[in-house]
Amino acid sequence: MSILTSEIQAALEKQAIELPSWAFGNSGTRFKVFGTPGTPRDPFEKIADAARVHELTGLAPSVALHIPWDKVDDYSALRDHAESLGVTLGTINSNTFQDDEYKFGSLTHEDESIRRRAIDHHLECIDVMDATGSRDLKIWLADGSNYPGQADLRGRQDRLNDSLREIYARLTGEQRLVLEYKFFEPAFYHTDVPDWGTSYAQVATLGERAMVCLDTGHHAPGTNIEFIVMQLLRLGKLGSFDFNSRFYADDDLIVGAADPFQLFRILFEVIRGGGLNNPDVAFMLDQCHNVENKILGQIRSVLNVQEMTARALLVDADALRAAQVAGDVLAANAVLMDAFYTDVRPALAEWREGRGLPADPMKAQLESGHQARIEAERVGGTQAGWGA
Amino acid sequence: MSILTSEIQAALEKQAIELPSWAFGNSGTRFKVFGTPGTPRDPFEKIADAARVHELTGLAPSVALHIPWDKVDDYSALRDHAESLGVTLGTINSNTFQDDEYKFGSLTHEDESIRRRAIDHHLECIDVMDATGSRDLKIWLADGSNYPGQADLRGRQDRLNDSLREIYARLTGEQRLVLEYKFFEPAFYHTDVPDWGTSYAQVATLGERAMVCLDTGHHAPGTNIEFIVMQLLRLGKLGSFDFNSRFYADDDLIVGAADPFQLFRILFEVIRGGGLNNPDVAFMLDQCHNVENKILGQIRSVLNVQEMTARALLVDADALRAAQVAGDVLAANAVLMDAFYTDVRPALAEWREGRGLPADPMKAQLESGHQARIEAERVGGTQAGWGA
Amino acid sequence: MSILTSEIQAALEKQAIELPSWAFGNSGTRFKVFGTPGTPRDPFEKIADAARVHELTGLAPSVALHIPWDKVDDYSALRDHAESLGVTLGTINSNTFQDDEYKFGSLTHEDESIRRRAIDHHLECIDVMDATGSRDLKIWLADGSNYPGQADLRGRQDRLNDSLREIYARLTGEQRLVLEYKFFEPAFYHTDVPDWGTSYAQVATLGERAMVCLDTGHHAPGTNIEFIVMQLLRLGKLGSFDFNSRFYADDDLIVGAADPFQLFRILFEVIRGGGLNNPDVAFMLDQCHNVENKILGQIRSVLNVQEMTARALLVDADALRAAQVAGDVLAANAVLMDAFYTDVRPALAEWREGRGLPADPMKAQLESGHQARIEAERVGGTQAGWGA
Amino acid sequence: MSILTSEIQAALEKQAIELPSWAFGNSGTRFKVFGTPGTPRDPFEKIADAARVHELTGLAPSVALHIPWDKVDDYSALRDHAESLGVTLGTINSNTFQDDEYKFGSLTHEDESIRRRAIDHHLECIDVMDATGSRDLKIWLADGSNYPGQADLRGRQDRLNDSLREIYARLTGEQRLVLEYKFFEPAFYHTDVPDWGTSYAQVATLGERAMVCLDTGHHAPGTNIEFIVMQLLRLGKLGSFDFNSRFYADDDLIVGAADPFQLFRILFEVIRGGGLNNPDVAFMLDQCHNVENKILGQIRSVLNVQEMTARALLVDADALRAAQVAGDVLAANAVLMDAFYTDVRPALAEWREGRGLPADPMKAQLESGHQARIEAERVGGTQAGWGA
Repeated sequence: MSILTSEIQAALEKQAIELPSWAFGNSGTRFKVFGTPGTPRDPFEKIADAARVHELTGLAPSVALHIPWDKVDDYSALRDHAESLGVTLGTINSNTFQDDEYKFGSLTHEDESIRRRAIDHHLECIDVMDATGSRDLKIWLADGSNYPGQADLRGRQDRLNDSLREIYARLTGEQRLVLEYKFFEPAFYHTDVPDWGTSYAQVATLGERAMVCLDTGHHAPGTNIEFIVMQLLRLGKLGSFDFNSRFYADDDLIVGAADPFQLFRILFEVIRGGGLNNPDVAFMLDQCHNVENKILGQIRSVLNVQEMTARALLVDADALRAAQVAGDVLAANAVLMDAFYTDVRPALAEWREGRGLPADPMKAQLESGHQARIEAERVGGTQAGWGA
Repeated sequence: MSILTSEIQAALEKQAIELPSWAFGNSGTRFKVFGTPGTPRDPFEKIADAARVHELTGLAPSVALHIPWDKVDDYSALRDHAESLGVTLGTINSNTFQDDEYKFGSLTHEDESIRRRAIDHHLECIDVMDATGSRDLKIWLADGSNYPGQADLRGRQDRLNDSLREIYARLTGEQRLVLEYKFFEPAFYHTDVPDWGTSYAQVATLGERAMVCLDTGHHAPGTNIEFIVMQLLRLGKLGSFDFNSRFYADDDLIVGAADPFQLFRILFEVIRGGGLNNPDVAFMLDQCHNVENKILGQIRSVLNVQEMTARALLVDADALRAAQVAGDVLAANAVLMDAFYTDVRPALAEWREGRGLPADPMKAQLESGHQARIEAERVGGTQAGWGA
Repeated sequence: MSILTSEIQAALEKQAIELPSWAFGNSGTRFKVFGTPGTPRDPFEKIADAARVHELTGLAPSVALHIPWDKVDDYSALRDHAESLGVTLGTINSNTFQDDEYKFGSLTHEDESIRRRAIDHHLECIDVMDATGSRDLKIWLADGSNYPGQADLRGRQDRLNDSLREIYARLTGEQRLVLEYKFFEPAFYHTDVPDWGTSYAQVATLGERAMVCLDTGHHAPGTNIEFIVMQLLRLGKLGSFDFNSRFYADDDLIVGAADPFQLFRILFEVIRGGGLNNPDVAFMLDQCHNVENKILGQIRSVLNVQEMTARALLVDADALRAAQVAGDVLAANAVLMDAFYTDVRPALAEWREGRGLPADPMKAQLESGHQARIEAERVGGTQAGWGA
Repeated sequence: MSILTSEIQAALEKQAIELPSWAFGNSGTRFKVFGTPGTPRDPFEKIADAARVHELTGLAPSVALHIPWDKVDDYSALRDHAESLGVTLGTINSNTFQDDEYKFGSLTHEDESIRRRAIDHHLECIDVMDATGSRDLKIWLADGSNYPGQADLRGRQDRLNDSLREIYARLTGEQRLVLEYKFFEPAFYHTDVPDWGTSYAQVATLGERAMVCLDTGHHAPGTNIEFIVMQLLRLGKLGSFDFNSRFYADDDLIVGAADPFQLFRILFEVIRGGGLNNPDVAFMLDQCHNVENKILGQIRSVLNVQEMTARALLVDADALRAAQVAGDVLAANAVLMDAFYTDVRPALAEWREGRGLPADPMKAQLESGHQARIEAERVGGTQAGWGA
């Protein structure tokens, strides 16, 4: 019998992790972007790669788009393409950091005409959402400054609020706005949404369908991220996760690769706070695969989230509660560690097979010849990347 | 003519920085607390030392108390003592971190009887406020945990809110509650109020007279503190500052000693946001003088705040604004740096003399024989410290 | 058959982790030290507690002493006591941070008479080593400064070297000097041995029996500690480990509690560099148990090191090497993760039983009534702590 | 009379700060590189811009080159060009991070043919040095890994040493090798030369003309950089500085912009350790001007170094020493702060005028029409940047 109870299996059954289309394109650092054979040349190929991840794992039924990187003439064609491959189009990510006009900001800009342009870009993103059937508009801003004095922090915050209100007003039906925060980069002195408090204070003024996006790589060293998860769930404002991992800055490495125990603690708080398989809390990846194979990197990532979710579901909540009430520090900690150290991989492989999926999706991909196929097919053209 | 305009002088005239009574007692690290001759043995002597700082600087007209460290039988006697020395009693600081019962928390404790005790301690502090005429109850909590699993983060947050509501309800008239946040220490895995967002979310549920206290040493490495100052002023929730400085953790060094430019930027945002000489924003020190003379350490500290305030007031707001609007990064930064690098010390010495204060309060104290006097007088008894 | 090969079992058989006598005394933060029933009152009781950990785990055959905390009149009596309980006396730790004279330094002090005293203390520690049969003198210095300018960094470094030379010259036979480094605390501006580079540069001038001690909690945020392990092993200068774990500063939590994957990576590099069961590389704990049971805390700690060593020994070195040579990032990482995620606990329980040890030492201690016994016995007297 | 004594003026007279040719090209983050009118299109134009900085400040008599970014067919033509503009060619910087073959390392690579290629690139750089008359070969390596297990840390260290030995052996006469260290980026899990200790341990095996390069932006948060300056000077291995400043990571902002007091402390230790105007210690900038004017950014930078050097030279060494010996913490700190807060700008303006330089080089450049001129001239072609 599996160590995963039927209750746990039912929870895992519902788990869905959205993939970022840009994870399949080339990425890198300011020093170098390495290209690799088989990299998609357009949004259709990116979605095909994402669908491949879902085909092998059953975990990734939707794909997030980045506008303008994933701009196409006909979004219903893109939608049909996705659906024909078994996935749907998900969150729309705006981009106001690559035009020369946004050098000194976008939704916060001093110049009303540039700010107008940035707002309009977001309205256009909502048009895309209407066409793709996406629910969420995710806003991450590169806005900030490099030198003290360069910017009027206060005025920018007020303009940001004004811009967000206008964008929020354009949403209809179930559509939501999720505002991401980031500690630093690409701005080095200040960023306009640096922490969860700022994101929360901003979205709280907008309305119920405005939420916070927590990117696991966007915090100061030493930050207790699971505390923030708990707090945002408690405040009813945790809209989505951008999963990835980091050793130093916003490294955008494979989720769970740098500190697996932290990922476990985060997922434990997600479960504790009712955030698992809760439609209000979207699970997404936001990663770069600078030096590793991208499709395999995404497979590894969703498996990491699934494995860690299984471990977090194994926590004996009653025993934990009893130890906490008793003030038994070591017993309480042991309950958590016992679940963390349990090897759930064989049980998950079995469960996967029971659903008609490969027991080992990494191996399945490696042995399938899929990579060789796309390398052969995708010759010529311009490989997708952040600049395209 | 002074480089300080009459407007700046008027602003400086109003500046008041509250001193912490405990800065005059012994303090140290977990490794060692060094005692020093002349250290006060009781609250009356601490207040006398604080009054000495005010006498020489004109900057420190009130003294914060820490209960139970400054518990006395007769608070009106203490009040009279203070007033006879030219100072008033200020903020009351509660303490729920030194009784054995608080090992696993106070206002957040699982055990209702211990939580009750912690709430009652705060109600008693408000009684003291009634007696001393203090306006602010400052709450810093050591609550937290050392190991993952040890505590139920969510339940603690809810109990914290419940406790704060009960305490807040007891306030009368102009009395306020200010909730301090702290990144870590003495708890190492989580603290129950780790960041401004949590403090803000908590006090926002209480009412208008509940505010956030920003201690400049309580942030993660790299945190842009002046951004938080700006944001809390914008949200109308910056209740008070605990000034000190740090290189690594919560070092509680003399304000301005570690990163004077950061102090300048903080004070610039205070002015920008209308927080200077605003009764809603209390300026306080919260420092330790582990290895240096305590009275001189406090004199140095209030002078540092004053000097940096003068520099921040020298910023040419119009030139700054023009450069910001023009997107002229270097010009905007230069406006700030020009003020920072201006030597305001001679003008402040002159201004001080004009008010009947010593031009150089440090020198005045050193040459006065005051330290020798208190060393001679304060023989026997137990020196005040954190444990007393 | 066990997942632990006979080779791995042989390696585990030899593993020995030294316990710090002070882990059994009370400890805390600058805010509070909590006392607990059953805490030892003298070095003999501390050693009895350490022996209890060894009795249940077979992992901790020696106990480190701290002078003067563990000063006794008759070290041979202490040695006999230890040996009668099945353990030996290990590393001697000096202490130059608790006398008033050391306020501004010890081995680095400006004042030759104080520096002399600090050197003499170390010579006395070597006398103790002669009596106890200890091999290692471990030097951790609290020397440093709190304010820029307070100290002449360069002169202190030179005096440190001079002091160390004199101490080193007193060693005989197999005796060694290990110099610990620490990023900060209790000094906040600078510490005189802040990093491995300084410790290395200092001991390199002394001789072959001078080595570096790496405390896992003494680094800047984000430091890659296993890299330092690799480097010191490569340079032949890794003398000992002080194991513990941390979230923020030098938290001194149970080893493996904060970032188990980091502990795994450290032990992997130990094995890779030939440091496992290498007499030149001593494994020690240096921890505080501020809020948890101390004997259980130490049992948990040595088990954590053992479990993680077993996982690190499971790494398929050939497969790893092949993937590294091939530049296959994901395959190489997978080899490591596969070992990390393997649940070695059942095999270790079995192996333990085969050696006549309890399968579950934590449970054995809890069910033994041992704690109740020492609580009943140890009534009166002064509980041991850092001040005693 | 100037506050700058003739001794200080003589010291300032000798100060020389090398400019990096690449500071005049475009730079940015992984998100975006903004282009700007007037940006140089080739090494000749970069050198012209650098010469302009020297013309206005008298502080920057040499220019560092980056190979291959500054590769030209005829280095003697480039040298003549530089000399005709009043500057010389300085340090040669190698680059092994932008070819596809270096994806997994260069001087540390597993593959001997790639490592060979990287060594050869450095030998070629020394050929360039022979042609340009440069003394220093500066090696900064992007070598590292993103995931635990990806790389064999130890083997790479050994190969690095082997590569460096071969490069060092090729140096002749006064030529030197300076090895830079960097905490992280572009590699995120480990870098092969992460700290001064590693750089020191490596160059110590090479010989007297191998030194460490300290980049002020390449440390962990909280690192006491001036301590490292002191230590490297003490060990005789501080070969050069790469000046810049940072708030978070390797932000490469204008030196002195983020923490001017830190720059002051660094320069104080330089002077204390005999590193000022010491031919063994080269002062260089290594900066990016992502959002500000590049020529003005460089002028501001060299002025910042000069102003801070002047302040550090003002420190009253005797008074400082006396206070240190007396253990007078506040007096010692006050000596330092007094120098730091002294406004040296008017005296430096005067001194500048006395040498035939503009009193205010920033203003001189702004009013000269120089920027408009180069914008008009430099039309067409490809602007220089990191990719070129």
